Amino acid sequence: MTEVLAGVDLGGTSVKVALANHDGVLLCDESFSTDGHLGASDVIERIGSLLAQLAKQHGVSIKAVGMGVPGLVDIDNGVTKFLPNLPGQWRDVPVAEQLRGLLACSVRVANDARTATLGELQFGHGRHRPDATLAFFTLGTGVGGGVVVQGQLRLGPLGAAGELGHQTILPDGPRCGCGNRGCLETLASGLAIASEGIRLMKSGLAPHLHALVDGDASRVTVAEMTQVIKQDNSIHEAITAASTYIGIAAANVVTILHPDLIVLGGGVAEIGDLLIETVKRVIDERVRMFPTSNVQVMKSELGVKAGVMGAVALAMDAL
Amino acid sequence: MTEVLAGVDLGGTSVKVALANHDGVLLCDESFSTDGHLGASDVIERIGSLLAQLAKQHGVSIKAVGMGVPGLVDIDNGVTKFLPNLPGQWRDVPVAEQLRGLLACSVRVANDARTATLGELQFGHGRHRPDATLAFFTLGTGVGGGVVVQGQLRLGPLGAAGELGHQTILPDGPRCGCGNRGCLETLASGLAIASEGIRLMKSGLAPHLHALVDGDASRVTVAEMTQVIKQDNSIHEAITAASTYIGIAAANVVTILHPDLIVLGGGVAEIGDLLIETVKRVIDERVRMFPTSNVQVMKSELGVKAGVMGAVALAMDAL
Repeated sequence: MTEVLAGVDLGGTSVKVALANHDGVLLCDESFSTDGHLGASDVIERIGSLLAQLAKQHGVSIKAVGMGVPGLVDIDNGVTKFLPNLPGQWRDVPVAEQLRGLLACSVRVANDARTATLGELQFGHGRHRPDATLAFFTLGTGVGGGVVVQGQLRLGPLGAAGELGHQTILPDGPRCGCGNRGCLETLASGLAIASEGIRLMKSGLAPHLHALVDGDASRVTVAEMTQVIKQDNSIHEAITAASTYIGIAAANVVTILHPDLIVLGGGVAEIGDLLIETVKRVIDERVRMFPTSNVQVMKSELGVKAGVMGAVALAMDAL
Repeated sequence: MTEVLAGVDLGGTSVKVALANHDGVLLCDESFSTDGHLGASDVIERIGSLLAQLAKQHGVSIKAVGMGVPGLVDIDNGVTKFLPNLPGQWRDVPVAEQLRGLLACSVRVANDARTATLGELQFGHGRHRPDATLAFFTLGTGVGGGVVVQGQLRLGPLGAAGELGHQTILPDGPRCGCGNRGCLETLASGLAIASEGIRLMKSGLAPHLHALVDGDASRVTVAEMTQVIKQDNSIHEAITAASTYIGIAAANVVTILHPDLIVLGGGVAEIGDLLIETVKRVIDERVRMFPTSNVQVMKSELGVKAGVMGAVALAMDAL
């Protein structure tokens, strides 16, 4: 029977799974919702049975599973430590052991941003540069990240290195969910940008945004803001300000590691050119100690598939 | 004849040279002044003849030379690119080629902070941890640095990675010599700290410092300020503020790389406990995404010898 790899991307509200061959070509992918207060063991059981069922349908056997989870993991043992945005008792769950029991194959578990970084390295912009040094910013509701040094994902003792969203950008800045102040996440996450959009809309400074969402704050996201960027000057300014903060964080990474590539992923990356061009300009303005012409700034090639493709790459790593 | 390694540390006002065996045990070290407007080729010739003379005296032959220089270097070819603090035409000087001509052995040239990092890795705190990940801050008149990831010095394409002093700490902060604003160097270099000491002294807020240096601004350095830290409260505050900025920069590096070790070297590191304890506290306060109990913060073990010992380590690398 053909052997395949499985990837699992555990999100705040849904789980995505996929089967792929060793070149990262997807056989199939599916997702299910974790709403309705599913507990951790229920979720793990559903992952196991869904993967078994998909394997059966496609007449393949699963050789290894990789799984990305939103938080801190004991990567050596595949045990979740702290998943702040997930309800349902995810502390100290031996995920790898439980999935191994269900599927009888090797399982690796890692933080989802690190996993997405691995996906970009293996199947995205990194795939023709095995020795690349790159930093991946996952710009979603929160801001995560991952760092690859000469082709090697930097994990650190807890798989926690690469938390690019929690660099201090403004030492006296807003309080962050992590406990620090002025983290990049407080200034440029999807949540931070949308909150500023709502403020501007309610202050009467963003009439086109107001028209677009019928004045409904719950409908304001970075995507809507990006749509009115050319009409509402205040929104253009807000997006530019957030992009500038991302640029400062990227410039700091360039100063420290001089990478080949800065990759921007997640929903906020859908801002597109204004984000990319601003980040490039800020790197150029702020890194003055050495020429940075080699440093490319790009949107993630894998887009919304970065998580699950990264999990497939992690499965490959498990072999 | 016994074969040895030579290290050369090119500074702003003097050159230090040393011969050492392969374990980094020094046979001898000497220095000469570069004042009096010596040109680059004069300096290189003096280095060559001094090393040849030392080798003859000790009855050894030099197998390789490593040399650290204060600025940007083309590390592949051993050509200096931009040494901002050195007079005497150091742009595009083929240092490696010239020294090779004089000494008939392999020569490697690198930035002095990267070289010092290599020294710390090979002969200092890193010597029993070949796989260590560490960040070395050289806190002198300026602030340089170097980064080691799992035992490998991160150089990047220009040998310029690891410029830890040029992270942006305050986006709208003071103008830096490099052209950026709010770099760590503008807030916590020896020059920045001493300038604040002078201001406080002249404002009448540091009477003990005033007494210590007879009110002479030219005598105020971090060393004098450290002496009165317990008497002049304003000086204690100034040193704590600078140490806090160094702590923020260190916390950012921890967030990105989760290293085993942060090493503080250079004259500012002589502040001692107040610096080390402040940096530890700031890392603890600002890195909240994962436990940082494994991260040690230490003063450089090699102290003033870090530069020349690093050059010896670089020579070893040349073989």
